[in-house]
Amino acid sequence: MSIVKPSTLPGFMELLPEDQILFNEMKNVIRENFEKHGFLPIDTPVIEKSEVLLAKGGGETEKQIYRFEKGSTDMSLRFDLTVPLARYTVEHFNDLSFPFKRYQIGKVYRGEKAQKGRFREFYQCDIDTIGNGDLSLVNDAEFPVVIYHTFKDLGFTDFTIHLNNRKILKGFFVSLGIEDSTDALRAVDKLDKIGEDAVIEELVETGISVDAAKKIIEFIKIDGSVDEILDSLNNLGVEDDIFKTGLSDITEVIGYIRDFGIDENCFDINLKIARGLDYYTGTVYETTLDNYPDIGSVCSGGRYDNLASNYTDMILPGVGISIGLSRLFYQLNEVKIIESEKKSLIDLLILPMDECISEGIKLVSELRENKVRVGLYTEFAKLKKKFKYANQTKVEYVIVLGEDEIKNRFYSLKNMKTGEQIDISFDELVEKFER
Amino acid sequence: MSIVKPSTLPGFMELLPEDQILFNEMKNVIRENFEKHGFLPIDTPVIEKSEVLLAKGGGETEKQIYRFEKGSTDMSLRFDLTVPLARYTVEHFNDLSFPFKRYQIGKVYRGEKAQKGRFREFYQCDIDTIGNGDLSLVNDAEFPVVIYHTFKDLGFTDFTIHLNNRKILKGFFVSLGIEDSTDALRAVDKLDKIGEDAVIEELVETGISVDAAKKIIEFIKIDGSVDEILDSLNNLGVEDDIFKTGLSDITEVIGYIRDFGIDENCFDINLKIARGLDYYTGTVYETTLDNYPDIGSVCSGGRYDNLASNYTDMILPGVGISIGLSRLFYQLNEVKIIESEKKSLIDLLILPMDECISEGIKLVSELRENKVRVGLYTEFAKLKKKFKYANQTKVEYVIVLGEDEIKNRFYSLKNMKTGEQIDISFDELVEKFER
Repeated sequence: MSIVKPSTLPGFMELLPEDQILFNEMKNVIRENFEKHGFLPIDTPVIEKSEVLLAKGGGETEKQIYRFEKGSTDMSLRFDLTVPLARYTVEHFNDLSFPFKRYQIGKVYRGEKAQKGRFREFYQCDIDTIGNGDLSLVNDAEFPVVIYHTFKDLGFTDFTIHLNNRKILKGFFVSLGIEDSTDALRAVDKLDKIGEDAVIEELVETGISVDAAKKIIEFIKIDGSVDEILDSLNNLGVEDDIFKTGLSDITEVIGYIRDFGIDENCFDINLKIARGLDYYTGTVYETTLDNYPDIGSVCSGGRYDNLASNYTDMILPGVGISIGLSRLFYQLNEVKIIESEKKSLIDLLILPMDECISEGIKLVSELRENKVRVGLYTEFAKLKKKFKYANQTKVEYVIVLGEDEIKNRFYSLKNMKTGEQIDISFDELVEKFER
Repeated sequence: MSIVKPSTLPGFMELLPEDQILFNEMKNVIRENFEKHGFLPIDTPVIEKSEVLLAKGGGETEKQIYRFEKGSTDMSLRFDLTVPLARYTVEHFNDLSFPFKRYQIGKVYRGEKAQKGRFREFYQCDIDTIGNGDLSLVNDAEFPVVIYHTFKDLGFTDFTIHLNNRKILKGFFVSLGIEDSTDALRAVDKLDKIGEDAVIEELVETGISVDAAKKIIEFIKIDGSVDEILDSLNNLGVEDDIFKTGLSDITEVIGYIRDFGIDENCFDINLKIARGLDYYTGTVYETTLDNYPDIGSVCSGGRYDNLASNYTDMILPGVGISIGLSRLFYQLNEVKIIESEKKSLIDLLILPMDECISEGIKLVSELRENKVRVGLYTEFAKLKKKFKYANQTKVEYVIVLGEDEIKNRFYSLKNMKTGEQIDISFDELVEKFER
């Protein structure tokens, strides 16, 4: 038989068990927080009908999609969890209660150009709240609260949730005589990446006067505490109605966020945030790690007026955020915020002498009955090899089981890190390791 | 904009949230048990290089595979978790410790003919233990133990783990002069499905004499307790070495299973079990629910001599089992062993009067700080609509929050099932609902 070199496709993340344990821990913390805040799980198929998935059509995304035929069926792998949510909400509309709060954690696929830190298969962790006809601004305030608790529980202390409202930007543009602000919003969104001059240039290219472009830059640079920014915006004297709605909305949302009582240092208003995606229509969010600005936003989202216009005439407004977990995990590893050290899922390993394997099994079973996370070395081998395995797996404690130990039911417990050994009874073992 | 009818592809399972909660609970119980027994998580990509995934080539499977090209790359969706495990083990060989115990829970893809209870995307929950060069029979005994605890924790009381050893069958065939037993084993495996006569017919078709075929049927029908079957096999006087090894192996494995101390009623020896797959070489397992024999095996697997001969010259023997969770969930639903009733992930829902929304937010936050799983109705609406939502979501308890409640910090807690209402303080609420 000829041998094929085993390898994965470029751009597909695959972890060693010690990294996978860490990754799964993060995934569990996120899931726990989503559920605690009342979001319900769904799990849509990875493959969808192309005509459904691509109903919106066009754009950058379409080129990146894994699309293929099987028999006469044209199918595609999902490239995000939002389009499937729209399809799901309409398809199961009559069985859902609104506001419909759902979470989904799953892999999505984009055939992007392979580059460092960009993956073609990656986890998204999404929550969205969908209203039937309308949806109050209380929901816009709940998302920063979920982000706050999630990132706290993930172990982060210094992060900032940036809020803005697209209506404020849009209304300000209108007040400058700019009616179609889509391209302008896209340009503004790049400020941190390409700098002021380049943004002005891009704005001018869309037909905006240099004077107006400069006013835009000045506007989005308005800085200060949340209340100072709200004051500045109120004092600008912009008379446009969209602007006024945006300002009133963000003021109301800030009020609710304060009612929720999260740390005032963890959020701000940042007028630079536009979110490139054109489906956002109100509140927008980005989240950055204070000490690692280069990582960019680790959790983003916003409010949209109508989730599912491709599938229904019903109006379904929503708010949602997404954590790109694979990318986040990769980046945290890169900057060494997390360092996976090999660690064992068990607390104790029994190394039986070859002739004591049956007694080893019995001991392990008794310990497991007493809620001890214990493993057994199952192979017949020299003691040296058994210890080598214990070392490799990084289990913290080891017991060598020989005839004396079996007879006396007294064990020598070895700490593999310190080398320290103590004599210990079965009951003491249980007391020490019971989970 | 034209509207596309939202629907999923046929053969792709998608659940409502209430079913998904139940499904996820089962998945969590399985994961917990895998981890408790020392299996480490891995998460291989859904897409692999076709040349790697299909290195073994040929057969039924190849036709079912979702295979496509993107750019010049020929790729396929995984159809099981075993081939990716083989690829993973060889690719990361130097970073793994052996015996390598891994679990993986993930979706796999087979473009089978769509039919009731058969899915094209389904979850497999796999554990395997891989040895480097050799692997003791203690491992063969550990799998029934994991199955036992997993199914107990899933809430099953009456199930049987059937054991056999392919060497016993193979050796018996050799003793009858049948050297290549692959086809014969496949025929034997169908006994429960197609009946004795049809199996005899199939055996004869493979070139076996009617006399020998009858002997085979007689042999695989040997019945009784575990010890009675072992006695019968010992007393048969079969002199073939493969047979003897198989008998000695299963005897040793049974001994270890007893050392592990699982309920003697939960396992047996069943000589009818051959497992159609030709890569099994020793112990084989099937698990059936005693009261639902029609469901067939809910957890199967076995021992194989060499996991990864397509990718390496190294000999990597292993043992593994798989639970087909999507199919199991579907079947349990069909026979009404599980019935998903809509239930809420939260224990309590606050329905604030419209003017009390801010105070509602504060109450919810305080309760969440005290580990209460509580939700908030966020919309401005008539009280009737708010109660309708509470009813739909099946939350068990509700509090209507008005000005009196806010002033007195005393609440009227309504049980939505019984209609009973009690007055309760904040502290009592926490005491009642703290998780």
